[in-house]
Amino acid sequence: MIPRLVRITINSNQPELLVRFYTLLGMVFQKKAVEKGSQVWRGECQGHEFEIFGIQESFTAKAPTVQLSFSVSDIQTVVEKLRPLGVQIMMEPLQTKTGFVSYLMDPDGRSIELLQNL
Amino acid sequence: MIPRLVRITINSNQPELLVRFYTLLGMVFQKKAVEKGSQVWRGECQGHEFEIFGIQESFTAKAPTVQLSFSVSDIQTVVEKLRPLGVQIMMEPLQTKTGFVSYLMDPDGRSIELLQNL
Repeated sequence: MIPRLVRITINSNQPELLVRFYTLLGMVFQKKAVEKGSQVWRGECQGHEFEIFGIQESFTAKAPTVQLSFSVSDIQTVVEKLRPLGVQIMMEPLQTKTGFVSYLMDPDGRSIELLQNL
Repeated sequence: MIPRLVRITINSNQPELLVRFYTLLGMVFQKKAVEKGSQVWRGECQGHEFEIFGIQESFTAKAPTVQLSFSVSDIQTVVEKLRPLGVQIMMEPLQTKTGFVSYLMDPDGRSIELLQNL
């Protein structure tokens, strides 16, 4: 099954400026209520979410600048197929309230979130 | 108008490995005929293009790892709105055979392609 891109997440230490930029580009954002210390704006971009995540400056070098989230039909099979490539699996498939989630890096270190709905 | 994400482009100096990774993730790629020296694979991801662009290793540090391409209804207005933010405009809107195209950087340096169809 061809995966579906469900969300693009942008991590930035200047999230308000990023929100202004992408708002001027035409997107509409709402600030999301999240745990203390985090700042997240959720936007919509014709069918997928476009999220801006505020991170502390000291964390900037470590955080991926972009994360791509894909919905797949069988997360465990996809992860088993990717494993032999030697990719870094940050989090093995984990059951959540709504399905499964896994985090890994593509061979260049881009952050990939895999989602499988129940 | 809310912009539409039409393409995600990934620049990499190990494009074949990237093609394997995203193929295992479920995407289907076709190698595109382009000018000598470039290697481009075009994939489809449920409504938008997902392109892997091979770049030389010596160029890796300069090239953005990801480029997001958005279709907008009035490219000149969008660029004029973004200009006061002090964003880097790599290429002002330019007429092509099919419409207009412009390249700029978001405030963090992510590469953004704007497209307007005629």
